[in-house]
Amino acid sequence: MNILVFLDLDEDTKRYILKKLSSYGNVFFKEDVIKNEDILEEMDVLLITSGRRKLTREIISRSRKLKFLQTLSAGVDNLPFEIISESTLIASNSGANAEEVAEYTIGLLLVAAKKIHLNDRSLRRQIWNVHTPRIIKGSNILIWGYGNIGREIAIRLRPFKPNLYGVNRRGVGDDNIDFIYPADNVDSLLPLMDYIILTLPLTKYTRGIVDKKRLSLMKKDATLINVGRGDLIKEGDLYYHLLENPEFTAVIDVWWRYPKKRGEKYEFKYPFYKLDNIIMTPHVAGYWDNFRDKLIKTAIENILRFLKGERPLNIINREDYLND
Amino acid sequence: MNILVFLDLDEDTKRYILKKLSSYGNVFFKEDVIKNEDILEEMDVLLITSGRRKLTREIISRSRKLKFLQTLSAGVDNLPFEIISESTLIASNSGANAEEVAEYTIGLLLVAAKKIHLNDRSLRRQIWNVHTPRIIKGSNILIWGYGNIGREIAIRLRPFKPNLYGVNRRGVGDDNIDFIYPADNVDSLLPLMDYIILTLPLTKYTRGIVDKKRLSLMKKDATLINVGRGDLIKEGDLYYHLLENPEFTAVIDVWWRYPKKRGEKYEFKYPFYKLDNIIMTPHVAGYWDNFRDKLIKTAIENILRFLKGERPLNIINREDYLND
Repeated sequence: MNILVFLDLDEDTKRYILKKLSSYGNVFFKEDVIKNEDILEEMDVLLITSGRRKLTREIISRSRKLKFLQTLSAGVDNLPFEIISESTLIASNSGANAEEVAEYTIGLLLVAAKKIHLNDRSLRRQIWNVHTPRIIKGSNILIWGYGNIGREIAIRLRPFKPNLYGVNRRGVGDDNIDFIYPADNVDSLLPLMDYIILTLPLTKYTRGIVDKKRLSLMKKDATLINVGRGDLIKEGDLYYHLLENPEFTAVIDVWWRYPKKRGEKYEFKYPFYKLDNIIMTPHVAGYWDNFRDKLIKTAIENILRFLKGERPLNIINREDYLND
Repeated sequence: MNILVFLDLDEDTKRYILKKLSSYGNVFFKEDVIKNEDILEEMDVLLITSGRRKLTREIISRSRKLKFLQTLSAGVDNLPFEIISESTLIASNSGANAEEVAEYTIGLLLVAAKKIHLNDRSLRRQIWNVHTPRIIKGSNILIWGYGNIGREIAIRLRPFKPNLYGVNRRGVGDDNIDFIYPADNVDSLLPLMDYIILTLPLTKYTRGIVDKKRLSLMKKDATLINVGRGDLIKEGDLYYHLLENPEFTAVIDVWWRYPKKRGEKYEFKYPFYKLDNIIMTPHVAGYWDNFRDKLIKTAIENILRFLKGERPLNIINREDYLND
């Protein structure tokens, strides 16, 4: 087997990967491709980030014998599915950062519920204004897209004693969630929810799943938290809903567009930054110091499953992403 | 027994209190005192807020036969101890809002750890700046003053998998905390802690307990959260520590001075509002819609214990508050 790890890596991480994989095949790194692009033709297994679309597309298009494609990221929505051969098994890195994303998501939920941002903002203006916190105990929380991340969120919310609702495609939950329903039932749940957390992958079925109609089903003072993908929500619909419903709160970590570089001016399509009822963070739910180390380890473990002839975790269905 | 409930109450709450207490004695309300102040001389039991110092002092000074004094608030540091007879049993309402304060405190901890405030502030300025979140799992958290509130904090933090340390006067904990030490040991713990949560009552022993020396023992990038009382911390020492240690974060819900009214300009003694490494909220950890209902119910239950001849909860030791 020829295994290509197409990532920017330090020497320690390369040694770690070689130690893990070299008894199962020949391991190649990004530098080997730069020296000789022709090796791509011979690759059986590829680990790549799905984030840099153009480069990823180029590498994949030339790896024509690929048997197994593993992404570093939990979401695979950026992959160029239309050029990946049907015989290539594709696995995401779902769950690799589930605990960390769950920690962050609960932080977002509590900031909004407790109005910490509004209270802090008042005092920064030297005004003693009291924005009354809301209590989590007894509130209704929906985890929309109950899976690896949702489970970790539920485990951490449990001792706060909310009523935990989940929906996912098959309506299959576990002991960590109070109620679980198939995705079709979501419209009957939305009017009851105090907090709605989006942890869905972005597929052709979930794109724009939160639109004007669904926003209007939610409580006037509900809080909508998105740590899935920006395009789960229709951007303009959310903007006008926030404008018209000052008691409604949105918490947005994932965006419809990204800047090329950090530290840049961010060009908003809609002026969300002028609204008091939104909390905005720049796609950091899955970031922490050395977060890549953990993602790499989890991805390598999954590649090992493939190399040993076991079934890898997080096999994704390309039909969910290919447009009809 | 003559029981005075000296609070502003609606008719429903008065009916509730009468139903609970009237078989144990004569129940009087604030209005009865306004009609005839002389009844104060005959009161055996008093429920009062400790917040409005001048009025509280006046009522207590005229209730010379008082056997049992119950406060509505969890903290009793505002009571005029020097005029309360030694034969009067004093009980705080500690624990009445412990669950809610715990929810809020974890919100404060997560905002600081995840840098949600900094990330939101950047995007509000239309700048895509990434402030990297920190992970709670594996971090060291100290609950300084482990008691009713500390326990509820620990229960809710447990699934985040931190190392939970507590100190309290006697060094006695429970199953919810990993390590517990007597208060004397705090100086050896401070250098290890990522998060330090103050849930101490303000007594003559705890006033100014966090000073320049103790701040200097803490990690350069530690987070100090105060939901106890403002005067636990020496205000100027904290201000200069924040100024000189930009990686250190303070989260302050309790203050050294309070404005007379909400919505007023708040006069800072030190310009904390100019610092990026502080999160400020206006003493709302124990506030929520109808929070007084719960405090009143808990206080009435404790008065019932006294009236039935049982030992009330939360008996406080006046010596802790009287200056030598």
